[in-house]
Amino acid sequence: MDIVTPFQFALVYNAFSFTFAAMGAATLFFWLSRSQVAPAYRTAVVISGLVTGIATYHYFRIFESWGAAFTLKDGIVTATGFAFNDAYRYVDWLLTVPLLLVELVLVMRLSRAETTTKTLRLGSAAALMIILGYPGEIAGDIPTRVLWGTLSAIPFLYIVWELFSGLGKSIEAQPATTQNLVRKARLLTFASWGFYPIVYMVPYTELSGGTVTTAIQIGYTIADIVSKVGLGILVFLISVRKSEAEAVGPEARAA
Amino acid sequence: MDIVTPFQFALVYNAFSFTFAAMGAATLFFWLSRSQVAPAYRTAVVISGLVTGIATYHYFRIFESWGAAFTLKDGIVTATGFAFNDAYRYVDWLLTVPLLLVELVLVMRLSRAETTTKTLRLGSAAALMIILGYPGEIAGDIPTRVLWGTLSAIPFLYIVWELFSGLGKSIEAQPATTQNLVRKARLLTFASWGFYPIVYMVPYTELSGGTVTTAIQIGYTIADIVSKVGLGILVFLISVRKSEAEAVGPEARAA
Repeated sequence: MDIVTPFQFALVYNAFSFTFAAMGAATLFFWLSRSQVAPAYRTAVVISGLVTGIATYHYFRIFESWGAAFTLKDGIVTATGFAFNDAYRYVDWLLTVPLLLVELVLVMRLSRAETTTKTLRLGSAAALMIILGYPGEIAGDIPTRVLWGTLSAIPFLYIVWELFSGLGKSIEAQPATTQNLVRKARLLTFASWGFYPIVYMVPYTELSGGTVTTAIQIGYTIADIVSKVGLGILVFLISVRKSEAEAVGPEARAA
Repeated sequence: MDIVTPFQFALVYNAFSFTFAAMGAATLFFWLSRSQVAPAYRTAVVISGLVTGIATYHYFRIFESWGAAFTLKDGIVTATGFAFNDAYRYVDWLLTVPLLLVELVLVMRLSRAETTTKTLRLGSAAALMIILGYPGEIAGDIPTRVLWGTLSAIPFLYIVWELFSGLGKSIEAQPATTQNLVRKARLLTFASWGFYPIVYMVPYTELSGGTVTTAIQIGYTIADIVSKVGLGILVFLISVRKSEAEAVGPEARAA
């Protein structure tokens, strides 16, 4: 493992601790706020909390693994010989990325048949995307990384197409008050997920050694916060507005 | 204990961590979603969470035990001399396998008398199946493993017979909307449970050393996720649909 500078070691160390706290706080927020939304949206809010809850666990493990891989003493970083376990990220994504799409589909409240189809399709594509990315992430050489990264991009493009084409009509069927928020949730998913491949491509650049390690860890950490906490908050807001709109619905129609 | 390669060590290590996270997330999902189903189905959903909750605890222990049995440092795996404790699996199954059958019987909502009879019979058979399997699992020689494995198959076959013959009539009595899901739940139980004996028979093959250990651990882990989380999700979906069907039932009948 490439050695990092004391600054890089501390930066990544503190970023992991920050993310553990942020994910844990988001989890408790979603679960405690569950009863603020109508029963039809509670599963979406519970799943938002599952995503950040699973990430809380993995950031705890990542933090511990980073602390076990290096020792910072008397201002000098030394490698302990225990590898930093990067697999925690992929294990996390394998669980959370399909759940993020489930949460997005559930908050739209489509018909039962459509919910099942979209969830299965998008969830499987997401799992495939993560599985294909991993061999490239642990590969020592750039061509192998490029090969698996490119294969992983195929299910990603399918997801983007499904979000913008397949779910486009469903978004038009949403109440006017939430259409804009649903569009934002879709855009946030697309933009934050698009950040991961950029981080994945850091080793293709002129950067080397500890700088690559640091850039990858900080990049993935930022992307994780935006895609998990950010989407969860949007899903919660959509759920609150749709609950309100549907609660006044029957009266408004009667008037 | 047979030594594993660094790849095998990391594969099993990450699979255990993944399963801990998946079981924990499933547990919280079932318990938080309890109020989404009618009171008649809440016990089935709570028990689904107990099963995955017990498994969460055991996967934490199994993960710790695996990490204590080997050291991976500077890319080399060494055995520490502390044995990997395989008994956690059997202790887990002794608790969770009878509960899985209870969860399946409860979601069918049979008559009180039938629920009691089926639960006791299936639960006892499941416990007997686990107890008879254990002496074979820890046996050093193949003939002993075959003997206990075969004895353990007797209660397994009784459970299969009971699920397909005894519970067959009860499935026909389920509402049309859920009959298909109940059949899927039964099939999932049968298929995932049928995977355990295949893993149990891995040492009968040409494989040896660390490969056998890895195949057994990964095999049992996959089977545990499918049988516990998979069945739990199906039980939850059946509970939601039956709750809805029964809620509109009286009005529909009155109309």
